[in-house]
Amino acid sequence: MTRRVHIIGIGAGSPAHLTLEAIEAMRAVDVFLVADKRETTAQLVDARRALCEKAIPDGGFRFVTVPDPKRGPDADRDAGQYRQGVADWHAARAAAYREIIEGLPEDEVVGFLVWGDPAFYDSTIRVVDTVADSLDLVVHVVPGISAFQALAAAHRIVLHEVGQPVHITTGRRLVDEWSPDLGTVVVMLDGHLACRELVSRAPDLRIWWGASLGLPQQELRSGRLADVIDEIVAVRARLRKEHGWVMDVYALAPEPGA
Amino acid sequence: MTRRVHIIGIGAGSPAHLTLEAIEAMRAVDVFLVADKRETTAQLVDARRALCEKAIPDGGFRFVTVPDPKRGPDADRDAGQYRQGVADWHAARAAAYREIIEGLPEDEVVGFLVWGDPAFYDSTIRVVDTVADSLDLVVHVVPGISAFQALAAAHRIVLHEVGQPVHITTGRRLVDEWSPDLGTVVVMLDGHLACRELVSRAPDLRIWWGASLGLPQQELRSGRLADVIDEIVAVRARLRKEHGWVMDVYALAPEPGA
Repeated sequence: MTRRVHIIGIGAGSPAHLTLEAIEAMRAVDVFLVADKRETTAQLVDARRALCEKAIPDGGFRFVTVPDPKRGPDADRDAGQYRQGVADWHAARAAAYREIIEGLPEDEVVGFLVWGDPAFYDSTIRVVDTVADSLDLVVHVVPGISAFQALAAAHRIVLHEVGQPVHITTGRRLVDEWSPDLGTVVVMLDGHLACRELVSRAPDLRIWWGASLGLPQQELRSGRLADVIDEIVAVRARLRKEHGWVMDVYALAPEPGA
Repeated sequence: MTRRVHIIGIGAGSPAHLTLEAIEAMRAVDVFLVADKRETTAQLVDARRALCEKAIPDGGFRFVTVPDPKRGPDADRDAGQYRQGVADWHAARAAAYREIIEGLPEDEVVGFLVWGDPAFYDSTIRVVDTVADSLDLVVHVVPGISAFQALAAAHRIVLHEVGQPVHITTGRRLVDEWSPDLGTVVVMLDGHLACRELVSRAPDLRIWWGASLGLPQQELRSGRLADVIDEIVAVRARLRKEHGWVMDVYALAPEPGA
């Protein structure tokens, strides 16, 4: 018994980020599985549902919420503990998905709606691969506009300097990893604006920051890191207070010619 | 007199990569400017025109081909000469765009259709910024699915390893720059499969390669670099011979746990 699964990148927040391929895949789905992350879930499920209602005006789909396994705090873990924690959590999530998929009629198509692009800092592909170890799945992945692309477009910038690379990393790694040789550095999954710790080492770095990209409450700031970081910290805190959560991303680049 | 310009990412080849935002922007455009790159132009202009006919069934747009300034070979240049060559070529292209835009009725909206995402290894934003130094332009940028995203989706992979970065660079830089610390390395603009030079240093690297992504002639290969590189070289040469050109991209990652 082979089951079809679509893992669909739905973009960074704006419904206008949906691609034609994403819409076609969404229309083929009967059951969307959504991880229940408790505090933020209601809003994120609502946002996904609104996207589906736009993309699938004829309906014919349903949402199933999957309780998300508990995950301990990452902050104090070393890299090995962090990887093990992620692996344990993937396995627990895969078991929960497997149980639900097994209970569905065999001709129903399963969908996962992934913010941004499933290829970047999202676990869905890995978790579904684990499910596929014990269920026969045909998996189709649809790329989506990632937050860093929405960031670059909103600021109207090219991410790389001429002939230079782009390095995409996490807030967790930034301070240890950063060097001017990396070119433009895009930082994702950074709830603490780790770039603050670079201000003393590299005050002339330029930053392009964006939050809630593509949404009505979108905020953009850019400039010399040392000059604008305090304002970014304040705007981020305000958005978090007003909306209960904030999704943001930023890019750092050396001063041209530096 | 303010003119409106849309710089629109149209994805990596497949019309299904178009986003709703891209389609809306395309429908607002009166005149698409297309750089004439001689040998490949006819096919690439045709491909863009086909996209427009799909996205804008009512028509109402036209294409203007802009002669592309001559650009010398980059191969033997050092990094400084390379940057200067790019800057000269940007300036010449900006002058050509400016001349055409100035000659258009002032209420006409100008569009540029960019393969992939305008934020990655494309000069349009920089060239239009130069035009905007002397013409009053309101520029809107639409992100698009980049080739490396189509690559990851086609191979159904997440680009980063758990907790690791993704580094996006060019074939020109790869051999000097590569180190396992960079995480997964995406290589763009590589007409010579520079990864061949890494085979002796890092034969166990894994490679995910794709050409003509999203098109009927799409080819995918993956595996241990030392095992699959010869086949990739052969497939690439065949595609180039059959179609007159080939667009490809690849990602390299250390063996997990290495």
